[in-house]
Amino acid sequence: MLNTTKQKFIAVIGGSQATPAELEAAEQVGHEIARAGVVLVCGGMGGVMEAACRGACAGDGLTIGILPGESRLHANEYVKIPIVTGIGYARNVTVVKSAQAVIAIGGSYGTLSEIGYALQSGLPVVGLNTWGISRNGNEKSPIIEAKTPTEAVETALEMIG
Amino acid sequence: MLNTTKQKFIAVIGGSQATPAELEAAEQVGHEIARAGVVLVCGGMGGVMEAACRGACAGDGLTIGILPGESRLHANEYVKIPIVTGIGYARNVTVVKSAQAVIAIGGSYGTLSEIGYALQSGLPVVGLNTWGISRNGNEKSPIIEAKTPTEAVETALEMIG
Amino acid sequence: MLNTTKQKFIAVIGGSQATPAELEAAEQVGHEIARAGVVLVCGGMGGVMEAACRGACAGDGLTIGILPGESRLHANEYVKIPIVTGIGYARNVTVVKSAQAVIAIGGSYGTLSEIGYALQSGLPVVGLNTWGISRNGNEKSPIIEAKTPTEAVETALEMIG
Amino acid sequence: MLNTTKQKFIAVIGGSQATPAELEAAEQVGHEIARAGVVLVCGGMGGVMEAACRGACAGDGLTIGILPGESRLHANEYVKIPIVTGIGYARNVTVVKSAQAVIAIGGSYGTLSEIGYALQSGLPVVGLNTWGISRNGNEKSPIIEAKTPTEAVETALEMIG
Repeated sequence: MLNTTKQKFIAVIGGSQATPAELEAAEQVGHEIARAGVVLVCGGMGGVMEAACRGACAGDGLTIGILPGESRLHANEYVKIPIVTGIGYARNVTVVKSAQAVIAIGGSYGTLSEIGYALQSGLPVVGLNTWGISRNGNEKSPIIEAKTPTEAVETALEMIG
Repeated sequence: MLNTTKQKFIAVIGGSQATPAELEAAEQVGHEIARAGVVLVCGGMGGVMEAACRGACAGDGLTIGILPGESRLHANEYVKIPIVTGIGYARNVTVVKSAQAVIAIGGSYGTLSEIGYALQSGLPVVGLNTWGISRNGNEKSPIIEAKTPTEAVETALEMIG
Repeated sequence: MLNTTKQKFIAVIGGSQATPAELEAAEQVGHEIARAGVVLVCGGMGGVMEAACRGACAGDGLTIGILPGESRLHANEYVKIPIVTGIGYARNVTVVKSAQAVIAIGGSYGTLSEIGYALQSGLPVVGLNTWGISRNGNEKSPIIEAKTPTEAVETALEMIG
Repeated sequence: MLNTTKQKFIAVIGGSQATPAELEAAEQVGHEIARAGVVLVCGGMGGVMEAACRGACAGDGLTIGILPGESRLHANEYVKIPIVTGIGYARNVTVVKSAQAVIAIGGSYGTLSEIGYALQSGLPVVGLNTWGISRNGNEKSPIIEAKTPTEAVETALEMIG
């Protein structure tokens, strides 16, 4: 049995539309999460979410898709555990709260809302070519920037001990 | 890999406070769901939810807990996949929409809200000593009553083909 | 200024599809709520919700529509305060929690989920030709049945003091 | 009767903890929104939300508080219409979707999530000393920065025609 206080989940967030470079990074991130024995949780749709799930499946990992809509049929084909929330994009809060760390890859405004929720929840957020955020231009970004997928996963793993 | 269009989920709903008979029924329902190779989804808390998860774990099954609060630490110890929704009891809609059939065991008003959502979503609802509902007293209840845990699980499995 | 601890809200719940008798009852209920100086809150859509809002507007009352979707354009035309939740039918919990008492008129399964939430939240629920519910067939229904719209509103007003 | 297709709502977002300068700005923003005949919607709690509602009440405006919790008693005292969502911080999506434009004043991570949701929903976001956001450092921020409360409200009003 998984031990829910020890089995770690990492959320991978990013756009349903993404560049080839982002998709490649997401797939590698998913693969390394799976190889580390960590569960991947995401929004369950296409783009970065699908690429990350594909990578995790290739590494024989578990993938959870927290879907916005009314049917599991909208999940990408690499989601092993589809959760049908029925609450639209309010599900963004569920994606991040279910994890112990978050890796953001590229992403648009939905990803920005997830970064906000993750930081509000006190979760570490590792970024790969994602949003830069600052208050008044004079504060250090709370997003930990990584240069490679490997560095992103290693950093997230370190943060969650 | 699980195939998300074929791997079935059954939701077990019921109160966090329950009678010994309800707990025993829930444990047996969970056990038989697991033995049928079906994933058990529930609200992740105590009472009927915990007993059903315990039974499923004894049958080496997978258990998903859709939690109302802000932390996975509130899940019962038999939840293998804790989903931290952060949306309170609005998560009841997610519990039922994530499944293809629902088994209601005893239960209080929260269970009634889940029965409403399940029927609204067109899901079959099998009842074990749960709410009776009617409109104008002259309609057949849409809840399929079962007499035993075995009959409840068999009926739910039949309904989802 | 309204005093939020004294200004009462009554939720009117019921189906978006309704019989002529239900619509007539809803309109009268809305009218009497408005005449009592109470704010009407509902799901903002058609059927019973629209009829109740129409009645409240005729009585110069305030109407709030807690909408399931993504746009205020889906509100019925008698909603003065459209709230766009974006959370689908999970918004049922918001409809009832925003009120101090609930009047259920007819209704289908969505209404049943709202009755469950209202009773879970400890709110009085007055019914007009709505769901009958019981546990084991031997308990008194927690829904207070009224015979007329006037009686329904008077009962709800009494319950909220 | 308000006409729901013409009556505009502006959301004011910002932290429940705020600097004196932010509170002063929020109060003035609320006042000018009210004087323009526009409804103010916010998260209903303290800090920037309370100051904005106080300003709106001074201008005899209508204030709506979309509360995260389970009781209207947690609303600040200047909220005229308390909406009790019961969905926690997932209510951030409801705050912005209920408005036609958003003014962000200071703010922490919750505000960042609301900015993300507002931009995802295609709403104009005017900022007063709030988050700066960028993708790759080379894109223009989608937040329209204002220098004064008056400019913020004028800009928001222009955007919503």
